[in-house]
Amino acid sequence: MAEGVTMTGRDGGANIGPIGDFDPVVILVRPQLAENIGTTARAMANGGLFHLRIVAPRDGWPQERAWYASSGADRILDAAQVFETVDDAVADLHRIFATCPRPRHVIKPVMTARGAAAELRVASNRGLRTGILFGPERAGLDNEDMARADTLVRYPLNPKFMSLNLAQAVLIMAYEWFLTEDMTPPRELMTNETHVATKGEMDNFMSHLIRDLDETNFLRNEQKRPGMVRNLRHFFTRGEVTEQELRTLHGVVSELSNARRNRS
Amino acid sequence: MAEGVTMTGRDGGANIGPIGDFDPVVILVRPQLAENIGTTARAMANGGLFHLRIVAPRDGWPQERAWYASSGADRILDAAQVFETVDDAVADLHRIFATCPRPRHVIKPVMTARGAAAELRVASNRGLRTGILFGPERAGLDNEDMARADTLVRYPLNPKFMSLNLAQAVLIMAYEWFLTEDMTPPRELMTNETHVATKGEMDNFMSHLIRDLDETNFLRNEQKRPGMVRNLRHFFTRGEVTEQELRTLHGVVSELSNARRNRS
Repeated sequence: MAEGVTMTGRDGGANIGPIGDFDPVVILVRPQLAENIGTTARAMANGGLFHLRIVAPRDGWPQERAWYASSGADRILDAAQVFETVDDAVADLHRIFATCPRPRHVIKPVMTARGAAAELRVASNRGLRTGILFGPERAGLDNEDMARADTLVRYPLNPKFMSLNLAQAVLIMAYEWFLTEDMTPPRELMTNETHVATKGEMDNFMSHLIRDLDETNFLRNEQKRPGMVRNLRHFFTRGEVTEQELRTLHGVVSELSNARRNRS
Repeated sequence: MAEGVTMTGRDGGANIGPIGDFDPVVILVRPQLAENIGTTARAMANGGLFHLRIVAPRDGWPQERAWYASSGADRILDAAQVFETVDDAVADLHRIFATCPRPRHVIKPVMTARGAAAELRVASNRGLRTGILFGPERAGLDNEDMARADTLVRYPLNPKFMSLNLAQAVLIMAYEWFLTEDMTPPRELMTNETHVATKGEMDNFMSHLIRDLDETNFLRNEQKRPGMVRNLRHFFTRGEVTEQELRTLHGVVSELSNARRNRS
């Protein structure tokens, strides 16, 4: 992804991401509906895949309906290459994966989408050109197509309900491709304008709270007092708290205390 | 997933998988198009999610078009529950996630789809009921909806092209949910009727090949012979080979040898 080429069209449209020369090529084999070619382009863009090849599209190419269905991923369609046979479409590539829900009578390595994505990334980093075959909407890839592939890809999905449409099959592969280089932590606190409170800021709030609770005699039972204070401390440190939230909590405590003082 | 209840409809339709009481509930908030509710049900079935709730569907409920679009996941639609507000839809649940492409001005934990799926599985195993909110097609969840969630979920995707349709957003979450308990190895050789050859079977073939090559004098250079034999051995052990393929290779070697003998 580091080559610095970006996906802009002949007419200078929106930039939808950087393209790597060795990023995998999505190869649609004998697709039937132009809409599905368009939604495939959209799914590719979601995952940062930009090279599209089309083998023997049933209704010819180009087809305006594909562009309508692509939700703005038309740069991928503009650059798509069309071939008559799978052999032609893969001739300059080094390694071919073929998506295939239920391979039968085939002796071939089968990988998960996640496993295949990792291998595609390794190949790309080695400067090998790779391709992923997706079959036609109803029938899927035939045995001749699969014999052209080095490796089959089968997604782990509910075995009683495997049916995916073409764009969804492409989306899962594109998503896994994107994740191979994504560094997003599984969980992080979004704090926007504020920051996570320091322990000192939290301690300051706890002192305020305990002081006001002492004033009301809420903590008058000397034997239970340490445990009650500890429980409150546990509660307020269960998750991260931001400085802004502490300010609000200071305000809430002061407001309740003042209201009480005014009443008495 | 172990409760043994299966997803069959009132009229005894197809079984599309086992339902866990504590599996996450997919909650569509103010969905606009019935088709999208149907394709959502399909995506849920793909990943083994079966509990659907719908909050204030724009065009009312039920809507026949949802069933047409569900590709056979109609059991999920049959069992879908409709609520007027998000508060009503989440009242009996313990933990809420909300999918949200670009949260702003929110102080909230944000997880990846994969991180959230892992937490959903842990919660389910602890007997907690969880829900995942998905917003309306165009606007997404509003700030009030997000304030009901414990955690936001943002998928790592191409930042220049994040747009997903509703069913695709649900599919990625359902796929990650399915993977949390999936044990498929990243790569395995599909051998079907045959089996991976033993080292003895491979050695037997190598002996056959070398014997026939010796007969032709292909290996006559005594100095180069060990390296050439080793290279052939490297080639034939690069990937797994099946017993059936070895039989074919034995046949190929014999056939070529015999043809040669007959010519000479």
